[in-house]
Amino acid sequence: MAYVDIVTALAVLQFIVFGFKVGQARERYGVQAPATTGHEIFERLFRVQQNTLELLVIFLPGLYLFSRYFNPLWAAALGVVYLVGRQVYAAGYVKDPAKRGPGFALTFLPIVVLLGGGAIGAVRALI
Amino acid sequence: MAYVDIVTALAVLQFIVFGFKVGQARERYGVQAPATTGHEIFERLFRVQQNTLELLVIFLPGLYLFSRYFNPLWAAALGVVYLVGRQVYAAGYVKDPAKRGPGFALTFLPIVVLLGGGAIGAVRALI
Amino acid sequence: MAYVDIVTALAVLQFIVFGFKVGQARERYGVQAPATTGHEIFERLFRVQQNTLELLVIFLPGLYLFSRYFNPLWAAALGVVYLVGRQVYAAGYVKDPAKRGPGFALTFLPIVVLLGGGAIGAVRALI
Repeated sequence: MAYVDIVTALAVLQFIVFGFKVGQARERYGVQAPATTGHEIFERLFRVQQNTLELLVIFLPGLYLFSRYFNPLWAAALGVVYLVGRQVYAAGYVKDPAKRGPGFALTFLPIVVLLGGGAIGAVRALI
Repeated sequence: MAYVDIVTALAVLQFIVFGFKVGQARERYGVQAPATTGHEIFERLFRVQQNTLELLVIFLPGLYLFSRYFNPLWAAALGVVYLVGRQVYAAGYVKDPAKRGPGFALTFLPIVVLLGGGAIGAVRALI
Repeated sequence: MAYVDIVTALAVLQFIVFGFKVGQARERYGVQAPATTGHEIFERLFRVQQNTLELLVIFLPGLYLFSRYFNPLWAAALGVVYLVGRQVYAAGYVKDPAKRGPGFALTFLPIVVLLGGGAIGAVRALI
């Protein structure tokens, strides 16, 4: 399980870094709190962080379920794909929001496997 | 615990479906990323997803705490009420935001029981 | 672990209270759903809730990791610092968004210790 816990910590750290970039962009582009709009690059960085929040909340339960019912090491490996995919997503989105697709797929597919696998494992544990 | 894990997977799946509806609405109503406003129906679907994110983050700890200190089967049953309530909430909100109350109550009340029960159980475990 | 679970319940409860304040402000300042802008005080309360959502999602894994690899009692104590910090943050932000710094630091620093400590513990468990 320690591998899974390290991936958990890395996914959270990645989300924190995305949050810091939003804070930096607030200063650089003069977007005063509480506003969350007003400069295109700020808005892109903000959406990267918000989308990562949405995915973190489904990634962590998926990681846990897959690890519990299948294999912690495979769960951690799928988690590494997620981590790489998020970096690709963030870089693509900031460059051009229309190019966020491939990075999104690379984070979403491992989550589907984690959750689907975990759900199948939980159902099999019942019957 | 497998029942609780299945409810966890279903709650996460429901949130993913709400997210896909936001993505579809982006295309259909021409709301270009990174914008999150610009069309009333898009904004309703977006708020349904965001509100579900807020509740998922309190539902999952509640589910875990109740399951740990009381009964996993009752936790899962309360989770099913939450799942149904969210569907009622989403359908009501999209039709008319003023009608989101009943569905919200139906998701919020089971969360109150899960969290309250879990907290009481944790305090009793200490004394 | 019961101390950690009580802190978990309190952190979730605090987030619920922040959410209720957003709902109240919707009524008081006439910000009709699905809008999330339109009145300065509403926007501040909304950002307090959203920022707390972002931190809750990193606080809970940190609490769990530190508790698992170090000490549940110290994890709970750091969690209490987080809870106090969030109250300071919310009060400061609503009064003046420019004054949200100290409260943010007081919630963010315990999270850094929880996550950093948990990650170090998980790595040490492997080697």
